[in-house]
This record gives sequence, structure tokens and C-alpha cells, in this order.
Amino acid sequence: MRNIKLGIAYDGTNYCGWQVQPNGVSVAGEILKAIKTITGESPSFYGSGRTDAGVHALCQTANFYTESKIEPYRMIAALNANLPADIRIIEASEADMDFNARFSAVGKTYCYRIVNAKILSPFEVNRAWLIKYGLDVEKMRAAAAMLVGEHDFKAFQSTGSYVTNTVRTISRLDVEKEGELITITVTGNGFLYNMVRIITGTLVYAGCGRVGKAQIEKMLNELDRTKGGITAPACGLYLKEVYYQA
Amino acid sequence: MRNIKLGIAYDGTNYCGWQVQPNGVSVAGEILKAIKTITGESPSFYGSGRTDAGVHALCQTANFYTESKIEPYRMIAALNANLPADIRIIEASEADMDFNARFSAVGKTYCYRIVNAKILSPFEVNRAWLIKYGLDVEKMRAAAAMLVGEHDFKAFQSTGSYVTNTVRTISRLDVEKEGELITITVTGNGFLYNMVRIITGTLVYAGCGRVGKAQIEKMLNELDRTKGGITAPACGLYLKEVYYQA
Repeated sequence: MRNIKLGIAYDGTNYCGWQVQPNGVSVAGEILKAIKTITGESPSFYGSGRTDAGVHALCQTANFYTESKIEPYRMIAALNANLPADIRIIEASEADMDFNARFSAVGKTYCYRIVNAKILSPFEVNRAWLIKYGLDVEKMRAAAAMLVGEHDFKAFQSTGSYVTNTVRTISRLDVEKEGELITITVTGNGFLYNMVRIITGTLVYAGCGRVGKAQIEKMLNELDRTKGGITAPACGLYLKEVYYQA
Repeated sequence: MRNIKLGIAYDGTNYCGWQVQPNGVSVAGEILKAIKTITGESPSFYGSGRTDAGVHALCQTANFYTESKIEPYRMIAALNANLPADIRIIEASEADMDFNARFSAVGKTYCYRIVNAKILSPFEVNRAWLIKYGLDVEKMRAAAAMLVGEHDFKAFQSTGSYVTNTVRTISRLDVEKEGELITITVTGNGFLYNMVRIITGTLVYAGCGRVGKAQIEKMLNELDRTKGGITAPACGLYLKEVYYQA
């Protein structure tokens, strides 16, 4: 028995999300079908976390146990040959038997892509959030700086989530602008449901002056979701990297 | 009556090409439907040239005559509101009555995107040509340099084309590499059918040593198509800009 760790890139546009669903084509479901084809097995499949419908990944991580003797580097080509082009296995390696893509993770980086322009390029459809009004990147950065560190991010999760401990640490929250493209990059030890999308919506509101220092303080101190921006749409969000202890 | 000049960006993946076809959804056909919706008119519609199925445009040019009084800058938003997201009007202006997007054009720039890697990113599907074997960019540049200038490009057109004069001038043919991405940019006073895709296929063959100086000389001097590379796939090709006399 071996424990195989995979790195996976996908365009989430055509999927109901990472997680296998009874009705809907999921990224994990497609990979499981490919694993079945090349190994004959139907193993449990552990992703680092779920991504919602329309959310993308530059490098999602997952693992599964197999009796197959296929070398990991051959598994990359074999799985890709059995996957749709919008899902690609980009890494495969043998991990310790106790490695679990979800529970061994110590942090993650997400990106969020915003196009700040009047017209969304045809090549950005489903891949970025179009904001037509002007965004002040310096104001977005000032708001971002307030979120870095350990905070109770209860006001940055979607209602209906039921996590007990909503304290998380953001170690990095950068706002970069290149031409029309604004990229938010956030690294943390864990993320609540929709947390990156609510951070993004709040930074966008900060960038157009609808949210200031006082509102963000109320979000962090009074845990008041209503002071923040909207939840940014799924299509701009990319899971970029998952970290594990060396 | 006014003559409206449009700049149009499109992702050609879902279209049978620029030109209206009896069976198939075309880029020009979609724009004509939008013009009909906002003006009530069904004018003749002149593109700078056809693009094949799957070929993209960063800025295709077209023109049409209209009795409509809608200001050109309002026409951008009005047309986009009636177009699918993978076709965007990015410019609109009133042109001289004798301006014709095709016959007034004095030159064009195309780009061709090649991903030189083992695995095609999900985000490059239908947008680049994956070449898995190593390409030597210096060899590609040496071959490209031989094509710059005025030549008979008869060996660089698809068989079945029936243009009488196959002499064209390439003023620029650059090969740039950035990470896995190789971009070929070519500017000329006119292009034969499939010319950029055959140039690209030939530069790729040059980059892996299958085509050298002797073969390219035979293409240019003996007009021998068989000495060149394959016709590169449509998905990597982008019409970047069309030039008109000031």
C-alpha cells in the first residue's frame, strides 16, 4: 500500500466544485474516475479542502492510498490521459503513510483576480471579477493591512457556516496592480467558508470608499458581517498553494 | 448615413470563424444580430479579414453604415449588452465614408502563443499550442530573421488557396520567451491563407532542429511548401492589430 500525494490545477468553470456531489460533475469525481481507470481501484480521496463551483486551482493538493505499483511520475501522464483538459495533474509523489492532504495542511495561499476596467476581456470571462468603477489600490492596501495577523474572522464567513473556532491568522495579504488587473494574494493558517471572497468584497468596498477603518474595526471587534463588502463572485478565486510541515 | 468603425476582441473557441456561414455561429453574425437589435438595421458588415474557427482576436476591425444617431461611445455599451461575453466591442468611432476595414488596411499584426512544457495548464486550453519537446528559441529567431522582408510566400499558404500575387512583406517577426510561454509576433502588409500558422509551424520545426537554413531557403526560393513545418493549430493564433493610413 502506498500513499500518493497529487498536485492538481483546474479551471473550475464547468464543475459543481471540488467535492463529489450526487448531482453534478465535480473535480474530485473526475479524478476518481481516472484513478479507477488506471488502477482499477476506488479509493477514498482526500483534498486539502473544498472549492466551490466556479473556483479555480493553480495547485490543489489531494492524496489517496493505492496498491498500484505505477511510479508517481508515470501516474501524472496516465491520469492526465484520462482527465478532461480543464483538470491537470501537475505533481505526484509518494507521501508518508500518515500524510493527509486536509489534516496535515498548515496553511494555504489564495489569489483573487479583479479586472478594474469598463469592459471585461473575452479572455477573462469566468476567470476574474469585473469592477467598472475606479478602485484606489492604496485604500485597498490600508484595509488589507488591518486584517493581517491573528483575528476572530467570524464577520468574514458566510452565514450558515457552523465552525466553533473562528480565529485565524493571516500572515500575508497583498494587493498588486498591473494594468487593469488587481490581484489580491492572501496566505493564512486556515480559512473560514467564503472568507477570501468576503475579504475581497470588503477590500473592493474599501477601494471605492464605501468601507473605511471604522467599518473594518467593527468587523474585527464586534464581528459584524454587515459592515463589510459583498461576497466576491467565485470565478475570480484561485487556490494557489497548500503548505505542509517539511 | 454614418460609417462606424469597430474594434472587436473575441475568444474564437466557440465560433465557426469570423465570417457568417449558413450553418454555424460566427463572430460577425453575432455582431450583426446585436446591430439589428440596437439600430433595427441589417447593414453590410466589413471585417478587416476572416479569421478561421478557433482563432482569436485582441483587436479585429470592422465597419458598417448606419442611419442610427447613437453616438459611437454609447454604441460600445449597447452592442456589448447584446453580445455573448466572449465577443466584446472595445472601440467604436465614426470613420470617413470611404473607409473600408478590409480595403483600407495597410498592415496587420498577429501573435501566436506556444506553451513549451510537458503539461498544458487548464487556463491555456484552446488558447495556445502545447509543444512538449524542447524548443531552442535562438534557432527559431534565426529562422524568423530569414523571413523578414519582401518575399514570395507561396510556400507559406495552404494548398487550395488561389491568390495570384503571393509576394508579401514582413516588417517584423519576433520570438519572445517568458517562462513556458513562447510568443511569436508578426507584422506584415498582408497575409496569405494560413500564412501565420505555417510560419509558426516552420519556426517550431526550426526550434527542434527539423528545419534549417537550407529548407527555409528552398521555401523562399523554390516555393516548396513541403520543406516547412506543419500548419500550427488555430487555437494559438490571435489577430492583434490592424493598421490604416493616418
